[in-house]
Amino acid sequence: MLTLNDISKNVIDMQYEVRGALVTRAGQMEKEGRTIVKCNLGNPQELGQRPLSYLRQVLALVTSPDLIGTSIKDQNGNEVIHADLHQRARTIIDITRTVGRYTESAGLEYVRRQVAEFITRRDSIPASPDMIMLTDGASPAVKSVLQAIISSPKTGIMIPVPRYPLYSASITALGGQAVGYYLDEEHDWETNVAEMERAYSEAKKRGIDIKALVVINPGNPTGDVLPEHDIIDTIKFAQEHNLTILADEVYQDNIFNGNKFYSFAKHVLELKADDVSLFSFHSGSKAVGECGLRMGYMEMRNIPTEVYDQMVKIQSVSLCANHIGQVAMGLMVTPPRPGEASFTIYDREYKELQRNLEEKAKLMYEGINRIPGMHTAEIQGAMYAFPHLDLPAGKTDVDYCTTLLEETGILFVPGSGFGQRAGTNHFRTTLLPPKAELASMLSKLEKFHKVFVA
Amino acid sequence: MLTLNDISKNVIDMQYEVRGALVTRAGQMEKEGRTIVKCNLGNPQELGQRPLSYLRQVLALVTSPDLIGTSIKDQNGNEVIHADLHQRARTIIDITRTVGRYTESAGLEYVRRQVAEFITRRDSIPASPDMIMLTDGASPAVKSVLQAIISSPKTGIMIPVPRYPLYSASITALGGQAVGYYLDEEHDWETNVAEMERAYSEAKKRGIDIKALVVINPGNPTGDVLPEHDIIDTIKFAQEHNLTILADEVYQDNIFNGNKFYSFAKHVLELKADDVSLFSFHSGSKAVGECGLRMGYMEMRNIPTEVYDQMVKIQSVSLCANHIGQVAMGLMVTPPRPGEASFTIYDREYKELQRNLEEKAKLMYEGINRIPGMHTAEIQGAMYAFPHLDLPAGKTDVDYCTTLLEETGILFVPGSGFGQRAGTNHFRTTLLPPKAELASMLSKLEKFHKVFVA
Repeated sequence: MLTLNDISKNVIDMQYEVRGALVTRAGQMEKEGRTIVKCNLGNPQELGQRPLSYLRQVLALVTSPDLIGTSIKDQNGNEVIHADLHQRARTIIDITRTVGRYTESAGLEYVRRQVAEFITRRDSIPASPDMIMLTDGASPAVKSVLQAIISSPKTGIMIPVPRYPLYSASITALGGQAVGYYLDEEHDWETNVAEMERAYSEAKKRGIDIKALVVINPGNPTGDVLPEHDIIDTIKFAQEHNLTILADEVYQDNIFNGNKFYSFAKHVLELKADDVSLFSFHSGSKAVGECGLRMGYMEMRNIPTEVYDQMVKIQSVSLCANHIGQVAMGLMVTPPRPGEASFTIYDREYKELQRNLEEKAKLMYEGINRIPGMHTAEIQGAMYAFPHLDLPAGKTDVDYCTTLLEETGILFVPGSGFGQRAGTNHFRTTLLPPKAELASMLSKLEKFHKVFVA
Repeated sequence: MLTLNDISKNVIDMQYEVRGALVTRAGQMEKEGRTIVKCNLGNPQELGQRPLSYLRQVLALVTSPDLIGTSIKDQNGNEVIHADLHQRARTIIDITRTVGRYTESAGLEYVRRQVAEFITRRDSIPASPDMIMLTDGASPAVKSVLQAIISSPKTGIMIPVPRYPLYSASITALGGQAVGYYLDEEHDWETNVAEMERAYSEAKKRGIDIKALVVINPGNPTGDVLPEHDIIDTIKFAQEHNLTILADEVYQDNIFNGNKFYSFAKHVLELKADDVSLFSFHSGSKAVGECGLRMGYMEMRNIPTEVYDQMVKIQSVSLCANHIGQVAMGLMVTPPRPGEASFTIYDREYKELQRNLEEKAKLMYEGINRIPGMHTAEIQGAMYAFPHLDLPAGKTDVDYCTTLLEETGILFVPGSGFGQRAGTNHFRTTLLPPKAELASMLSKLEKFHKVFVA
């Protein structure tokens, strides 16, 4: 019989704490009837965020095309779906015929074209549908790039610390070397080229062949948004050391307090850094909160065709991304426009969604910083805070989060699940609980903290 | 800049011919206005197969729950969706709330329970929801098992020859050793224990540590259905050599000519082979033709909990299978029952779908065997034929399929893409073109063949 001894060491060593032991324990507690405040995962609809109606309605019509053009009336006799959305669904079905077929491996061409147009609108730069791949969310896209690049046990990938554990877990699974560079907590978790140089040269000395650099902007778990100069400096650093950049930009639509998102694609182009290969990732999981649909894309720049072909081949072994998710990605990048019947509802829903998250970021920031012995940097974007914890000697953030869960039902992820400077303690919390719950959670947290540190 | 030299050799060496160079060429030809008969891929809806209405209608309601309980009338004033399906959608939404959230990593518990009940109905054996994982089709499930098991460059996985290239491609990508055992073409592509023993002991002599055995039943590309004694012999072989079995059973619902499908799970249990670890795979891509939804599951038997936990961890790094596909899997294993309003349509559609495929299997079998210099075994199941080709010396099946594509627009996959005994030539064709097209394709093929071999 198969035992743990038969399992690949790379798999066993892989750690993915946002769904780790604490989450399993929380699941048990829930079965025992306890209420859990799930702040462990950026899963907005799990905590009550509503989907955008236009997106779901068009998907419903496309899923069951016999509904297109029918009269759908609610109990008050009103049409539930606006005519422009019926028309949209008709156009999609005319192109794609049925969501039940495999698409081409790279994804539906019409959606790749829509994504390219979206990038052009966002950044005022050209973009090619032939350098875009549609994927089941951003995670498989990231994994396939790492799979392509990690070619020996000496291959190094620079990743931020703290970082979303997808990167460390995937590099471990692929048998490569994660080379951590610390983000600068004192300066809103910005990147710092001097620190990147330190990490690079120390790893080089250990014989590691560094091939790529991961940047997560807006930051996960750190909730920062990189200023333009950081992006420019990072591209120059990559250029100097001949590194490919993986730009995880899945939170680009979640920006607060007048901050601004700058894409790596735009700056690679403006710097004329034609020798810097760039993979950029985006997803619908965060932009429109549709985690469950598994919708994402990856855009490639300065990548030779023969490397692009290898990326498509990797994807082809799983045939293609799910077809409904691909259609959803097309809808996400082409929302209703002013003048269309469905625009009013869309506009209201989208603004409400954005305002809600921004308000919760403010609540969280103020609530955390009110607690003595705990502080967080400004929450500029994404959907997380990563507060610093002052703990009594001998206690770790794992102890803290474990006891917190058992005593209050609040589920955070310990800082150690993301990496942090030795001797420091943090936790990651999402901003996602409804506002009323958030306030009550913060007050429970404050009480717990006082007792724990005493 | 990233070049092909930077790409992992395992990735470059990976071959996946069902979406390989010929398919790319066919895509170009299509853009130039040529008509392509796409017999390269088991993608039923691409070639006009209709989805099952109940499945799509419930998915539409679940995707846009504001439609549940509405009145949906077609142009003749008839309700499009039966009340029992509205009720189904309501029940699903009550449980799952929204398809926009990540589910637990292993997949929705209520669907895993439905799948376990389906296995019990199918095989009259107990099945546990806690040993089932819901996946984005069968392919990622297979890859994750191989990822777990392949622990060194010496790890060997026995795979049938010919085989679906997912297996060879994934083993190459993971840096393991594919150990081929030939299927017996003379006996309807059955497995043969003597041949398995040969492959096993030759690989052992080369120092390969054989850990697992893949069986594809019904066969892809071979279109066979294994008799019960083959399954029993294979389990005993695995038991003797301490091998884990990967049973790819995705075509279990596509069985023709009074043949019968026997699952590995049932026979492992009946043989009391408690020491044989078994992973069984099923999918909606073939059973209900819903390739694009990416719906699948894997069932594990005789697997210790700590190994199951590793499988769940691998899946957790991509969060979860797409939520709509998970709901669809639940629907697939619980179709409408006699007495429910939607049963009549379901029953008619499902039988039509099955009859259609069976008739095409007959047409294909007779058409191929009518052509001198070409013959196929009985097509007992799945959706393929894998005919043997007599070719003039110096010509290969790659030459044959390439010329066939250029001259007729018919797209087959050469036998070499699946593996075959040295010196033999084959091609794989799907049974999927509509009946009228199939007849015309066979007649074009006959004409082409005469000219090619002359």
